[in-house]
Amino acid sequence: MTTFVFGHKAPDTDSTGSPIIWAWYMTEIQGKSAEARLLGTPNTEAAWMLERWGLEQPAILEDVEDGQRVVIVDTNNPAELPANINKADIRAIIDHHRLVGGLETRGPVGITMQPLACTATIMHKLMGDDASKMPEAIKGAMLCCILSDTLEFRSPTTTDEDRDLAIALAKDLGIEIPALASEMFAAKSDVSRFSEAELLRMDSKEFETGGTSFRVSVLETTSPETVLKRKDALIEAMPHVASEDGVAQVLLFIVDILKEEATLLVPNDTVRSVAEKSFATVCSGDTVVLPGVVSRKKQIIPNLTV
Amino acid sequence: MTTFVFGHKAPDTDSTGSPIIWAWYMTEIQGKSAEARLLGTPNTEAAWMLERWGLEQPAILEDVEDGQRVVIVDTNNPAELPANINKADIRAIIDHHRLVGGLETRGPVGITMQPLACTATIMHKLMGDDASKMPEAIKGAMLCCILSDTLEFRSPTTTDEDRDLAIALAKDLGIEIPALASEMFAAKSDVSRFSEAELLRMDSKEFETGGTSFRVSVLETTSPETVLKRKDALIEAMPHVASEDGVAQVLLFIVDILKEEATLLVPNDTVRSVAEKSFATVCSGDTVVLPGVVSRKKQIIPNLTV
Repeated sequence: MTTFVFGHKAPDTDSTGSPIIWAWYMTEIQGKSAEARLLGTPNTEAAWMLERWGLEQPAILEDVEDGQRVVIVDTNNPAELPANINKADIRAIIDHHRLVGGLETRGPVGITMQPLACTATIMHKLMGDDASKMPEAIKGAMLCCILSDTLEFRSPTTTDEDRDLAIALAKDLGIEIPALASEMFAAKSDVSRFSEAELLRMDSKEFETGGTSFRVSVLETTSPETVLKRKDALIEAMPHVASEDGVAQVLLFIVDILKEEATLLVPNDTVRSVAEKSFATVCSGDTVVLPGVVSRKKQIIPNLTV
Repeated sequence: MTTFVFGHKAPDTDSTGSPIIWAWYMTEIQGKSAEARLLGTPNTEAAWMLERWGLEQPAILEDVEDGQRVVIVDTNNPAELPANINKADIRAIIDHHRLVGGLETRGPVGITMQPLACTATIMHKLMGDDASKMPEAIKGAMLCCILSDTLEFRSPTTTDEDRDLAIALAKDLGIEIPALASEMFAAKSDVSRFSEAELLRMDSKEFETGGTSFRVSVLETTSPETVLKRKDALIEAMPHVASEDGVAQVLLFIVDILKEEATLLVPNDTVRSVAEKSFATVCSGDTVVLPGVVSRKKQIIPNLTV
């Protein structure tokens, strides 16, 4: 039986690239039958990465059958995975998020979670010497995953391991990191084709604190003004998205990758209060700038206070 | 803050030795403050291992405080851990059991689960070259953990990695494996001091299948006759243990390490039916011998049928 390798339901670069990288490793090095899958449409940056390295877009999976062999990467959260995931035969998990609980395996399997910026960096470690056998496209995907998850080393999630590996891969590929990252981020910033609701759900995690549930959304961009032009429409779409998704509030952080700051939309007094308590700031208008804030994992979620 | 490193609530050799090994690694190699703890009284084999290598018995922990830093080894099952475990600050998990779900971490941390026979083998891999710095007592504990969990390589859970490491450690220590294992198993077989209820709970995991809950207990011994002499008293104790622990049935498998077979006590028709369906056998009396069965993980739990 072919093993399906996939990440989470909102495929960014790491959740698109890492399944391809690991399916390559399982097939070419371990001699197993494995194929990458996606659980949704890749975002514009992930699509650019596929095109840049001549990689085929993996097929999109709606759900998994009972007993389907799967390898889960870049998440361990059942809410971000197919509904039937615990009836599948989970053969491995490779992730860099906090353990949220809820996944079960049938027997003992390999599970590797590490506090690194990027899933692909963990994969490189797991491959050991076999990593040198990666073809150019797989190396390229790995490099893009790291640059994406670290925002070209700007994110406080960046570790020396992520940085050193990216630099080594770029050298090996004969590529200049700033040029590659700049093209990648331009692709990520091109969100004109998405509706407001799509933007609010594109890179989003549900999080509950103090009895209030949030959809915590992040838009990483080199062109925040493009998104901010749509501020009124985004604020108007928030209550609909919140109600459809069963959360109390939608928080949209527009992360300016180059300036290393986030702009939070402030649609109502509840969000205003959350923003002031969480980030020791004062907001008067319908946006507030949070200098230095770029990481949901390290800077937004841990500080969120109701 | 000192990190407490501990295994599960019924400390066998691996759950006693692995916390000591990892606390040594954290302290001496990583330069952190860490101490091994136990969640119960070590079994007779584990106590023998401590004595054999001159290791101090770790203090027994009743529960963990909110925010206590902990590293969990040899289990990922909240039912086998302190009641307050999810309020603790779990900093790492190293285990070789199936993922059961239920544990949560505060942030991304190192989690390593591998389908090896023994937690200590995984630790050796994680240490890399630093493993060579282990003092004799830590190497000895590691060797005992592997020989215990593999039943001196007899268990089908044994992998080449477990075996190769044990052989290398024995060579390094100038020790003959058969002699060490024989003394260890003799210690494990000395269960005269325990009550019937204690024997039924000593090496036991709860498991539910087909709507029936079981306490699946294993007694590994080189002297099954010693336990079988107490058969009537054990059968009499079963309903009390089942009712106190809130399970429907207690299954006691007396594993003859040297003959590589298990004798299951058959106290009633329900267990008789389970035995016949699970192990394709016929039982007439109050015991049934299951040739080749030595591993709860690989041979008992996966076959259990109601």
